[in-house]
Amino acid sequence: MRPVSENARRKLAATAARKSGVEALLVTHLPDVRWLCGFTGSNAALILPTSAQRMPVLVTDGRYSAQARLETSGVKVIIAPKSAVIAACEWAAEAKIRRCGFDDGNTTVATLKQMQAAVPAKLRRGIFHPVGALVSSLRWVKDAPEIRKMRAAAALGCRLFENIFDALVPGATEAEVALALEYEAKKAGASEMSFPSIVASGPRSAMPHGRASSARLPRRGFVTLDFGVVLDGYCSDMTRTVHMGPASSQERHVYEAVLEAQEAGVTAIRAGVTGDEVDEAARSVLRREKLDKWFTHSTGHGVGLEIHEGPRIAAKQTQKLEAGMIVTIEPGVYIPGKFGVRIEDMVLVTTKGAEILTPSTKAWIEL
Amino acid sequence: MRPVSENARRKLAATAARKSGVEALLVTHLPDVRWLCGFTGSNAALILPTSAQRMPVLVTDGRYSAQARLETSGVKVIIAPKSAVIAACEWAAEAKIRRCGFDDGNTTVATLKQMQAAVPAKLRRGIFHPVGALVSSLRWVKDAPEIRKMRAAAALGCRLFENIFDALVPGATEAEVALALEYEAKKAGASEMSFPSIVASGPRSAMPHGRASSARLPRRGFVTLDFGVVLDGYCSDMTRTVHMGPASSQERHVYEAVLEAQEAGVTAIRAGVTGDEVDEAARSVLRREKLDKWFTHSTGHGVGLEIHEGPRIAAKQTQKLEAGMIVTIEPGVYIPGKFGVRIEDMVLVTTKGAEILTPSTKAWIEL
Repeated sequence: MRPVSENARRKLAATAARKSGVEALLVTHLPDVRWLCGFTGSNAALILPTSAQRMPVLVTDGRYSAQARLETSGVKVIIAPKSAVIAACEWAAEAKIRRCGFDDGNTTVATLKQMQAAVPAKLRRGIFHPVGALVSSLRWVKDAPEIRKMRAAAALGCRLFENIFDALVPGATEAEVALALEYEAKKAGASEMSFPSIVASGPRSAMPHGRASSARLPRRGFVTLDFGVVLDGYCSDMTRTVHMGPASSQERHVYEAVLEAQEAGVTAIRAGVTGDEVDEAARSVLRREKLDKWFTHSTGHGVGLEIHEGPRIAAKQTQKLEAGMIVTIEPGVYIPGKFGVRIEDMVLVTTKGAEILTPSTKAWIEL
Repeated sequence: MRPVSENARRKLAATAARKSGVEALLVTHLPDVRWLCGFTGSNAALILPTSAQRMPVLVTDGRYSAQARLETSGVKVIIAPKSAVIAACEWAAEAKIRRCGFDDGNTTVATLKQMQAAVPAKLRRGIFHPVGALVSSLRWVKDAPEIRKMRAAAALGCRLFENIFDALVPGATEAEVALALEYEAKKAGASEMSFPSIVASGPRSAMPHGRASSARLPRRGFVTLDFGVVLDGYCSDMTRTVHMGPASSQERHVYEAVLEAQEAGVTAIRAGVTGDEVDEAARSVLRREKLDKWFTHSTGHGVGLEIHEGPRIAAKQTQKLEAGMIVTIEPGVYIPGKFGVRIEDMVLVTTKGAEILTPSTKAWIEL
């Protein structure tokens, strides 16, 4: 288990940055900033020196002056009237940082140009080094406070599902169902949904990303509910598919196959296996049932401060899972024009296996 | 008034691109893609040749195959199993495009590297040219269908405000008020709120960006409501500040000054004036009242498919406003630890002046 303080997280990041050969990291991706120092404002740049002798610097603007000091500790707060990232670069240059890592996957070409223009000409070419998602990938493994928060978010997701059945009546619109989920989520303290809820009914269930629409729930057919909440900054994500009215034998068969695939994926998980192996465990069940050609996406992804993080649970992902990672397992089968089924849990990777954080029933539900 | 079809918009963009010296534009910012071809999916890249002889190409993935063909016309749709932007770059290279503009403010350093890797080595250095927000800035001036949609979004915002008073009772939480706004918005067909609603009560009204929290509405004090809806893709944005219980003379004075400043800003607007002039019109009222040091942000911004677009209504903005632009006018005064007041309308710039799209009363309201 990871150590728990933000200071410990900063040490991890500083060590990784040192290995990348930089003297400091410029952190601008907001979930990374939050993870490293607790600041939740919408405008921020953090300079994290790799030397333990130097204090990290958080730059934000006047709107967040009080909040930045309240939320952080062990970090020097600078309030800048201009862009936080530019002010942070100026600070780094003045602090004699000569090699500064930045996340090139979260920095635009125009911003990099502005960053270079903000430092003295002689530094311009050499100072900024792309280090990719160095901090974001440290976030893949959750520490104890994060796991606690994600348990709470996942549990709220389950409560929402378990209380939605009254809204699942023929003739109700998908949007009404999504609204009922969201209303209850916010009443329970969620700041927002972690993504626009998917409520995909009847033939629309064949769309893997069927956002809730004005379509009405049918008397007979599947309804796929894929949704999540953001609670205390952390996202949940779960999917259940229920059936309105009596089902055909094909519908039953597909459901049972997807459920078996999903459970096989969960069973395959433990620290040390790869995303590829877990994906294959789920996919092979659908292959056996000759349904794999309708399973058109990967099996899962990491979740945390962001709804989509690493690791990917997909073919060719050869990196080993680690204890403390939280991932989704969500195979689906989508038969165009007919129907689709997806079942998804959020699971915590442990040394021995997987702990399901979304224990709502996956048994067949006919309404 | 602008011509109204997406084809006409593409002609505008092609003309602007030709002036920038490129043979085609690579458009990846999703609101730009939507504006140019109508496609609303979440993964897309559009290649827009500047020559009228060549058809634009929209690249997306298999999830959006049917939707892309349904939503677009006059555009060739390509379904790619990989990243849309990379597939679009490959297509451009094969189509012998040798100078392709891209929006460097919406393209990451890592993506540009991948784009360059996707084309033959001999093209790599010369093919991609930063053209900034070329398409986004064309969107600042709205055409007739856009103005119609924005009128509808703004009108819905007004209805929500006019029906929120029952929820404004001492002891209710700010989050409950925000939820009531959102619930009614979605029931009325809004796909989402255009940003997390601000409900800032009592001393929290002194925070210009006080997102609705668990704080409870006071018996005496201001409540600032700043919110918007997304209706048919277009955003609304408005702010009203109401008072719970009897007000102090200072509170009344600040409110009247902010209202006068807001109205002065609206009155200053017409095609041909600059953002700087409008900002100064509002700011000078607060200066006269010795309140300008508490007006810590700019006066307004454009709104459209995005909640924050150009033009900026701020000091030093010397570009002239044009008929058809839709901007906010939202001065505020924030006295730290005490209270704040902000009043905001969304207005359509015309040749003769400004038309307020959010006509809900701005008169003093005491609840």
